[in-house]
Amino acid sequence: MNPATGIAPTPEPPYYAVIFTSKRNSSDDHGYGVIAQRMVDLGSRYAGFLGIESARGPDGVGITVSYWRDEAAILAWKRDPEHEKAQLAGQHNWYADYHVRVAKVERAYGSLRTAGKHVT
Amino acid sequence: MNPATGIAPTPEPPYYAVIFTSKRNSSDDHGYGVIAQRMVDLGSRYAGFLGIESARGPDGVGITVSYWRDEAAILAWKRDPEHEKAQLAGQHNWYADYHVRVAKVERAYGSLRTAGKHVT
Repeated sequence: MNPATGIAPTPEPPYYAVIFTSKRNSSDDHGYGVIAQRMVDLGSRYAGFLGIESARGPDGVGITVSYWRDEAAILAWKRDPEHEKAQLAGQHNWYADYHVRVAKVERAYGSLRTAGKHVT
Repeated sequence: MNPATGIAPTPEPPYYAVIFTSKRNSSDDHGYGVIAQRMVDLGSRYAGFLGIESARGPDGVGITVSYWRDEAAILAWKRDPEHEKAQLAGQHNWYADYHVRVAKVERAYGSLRTAGKHVT
């Protein structure tokens, strides 16, 4: 993402978004943070990764949106062995609830100066 | 949204998501909060509104995802006169940067007990 604004400089649509909404429980904050950062580092190395945006408020509700070139890239990352372990840990230890939506971005606009330019 | 978990109990796909990512500046927190809540109240009365999820972290980066039955519902809400005023206020006063993506949700899964049931 753009470190100044937290907004991912994605290319022109179409591309895919994975919207991951979750509610954290209160356990094991440190272990969670380490694994969450590791998943960002690992996932962003996958072919077809375009960017990621994330926010979590004081109520424990968080939204992470990762952007991908196509469905094949999303599935390859979902099946990464280390990611699979993290998904199970999230389900069993860290999330009171979560929901994942896979969506095709059809149009985009905004104030972002880099809109339409995939800045690496 | 589900008040216990912050996750919107959306119906089975397909439906639409509007992903609004923003970076707040530091001005006028109170005025912003009042208008932001008003927009949630007003938008959720529009035909085709399915739900909303929102999170903003301590770095000022926020993600709000609203869910809609179709593109026509999204456009009707975008053109609401009070919403148009709020959009301008956001651009000029409250956001250092923002980006909007309109995406068609193709599949969804998660731990949400209400998944696939549109709870009103």
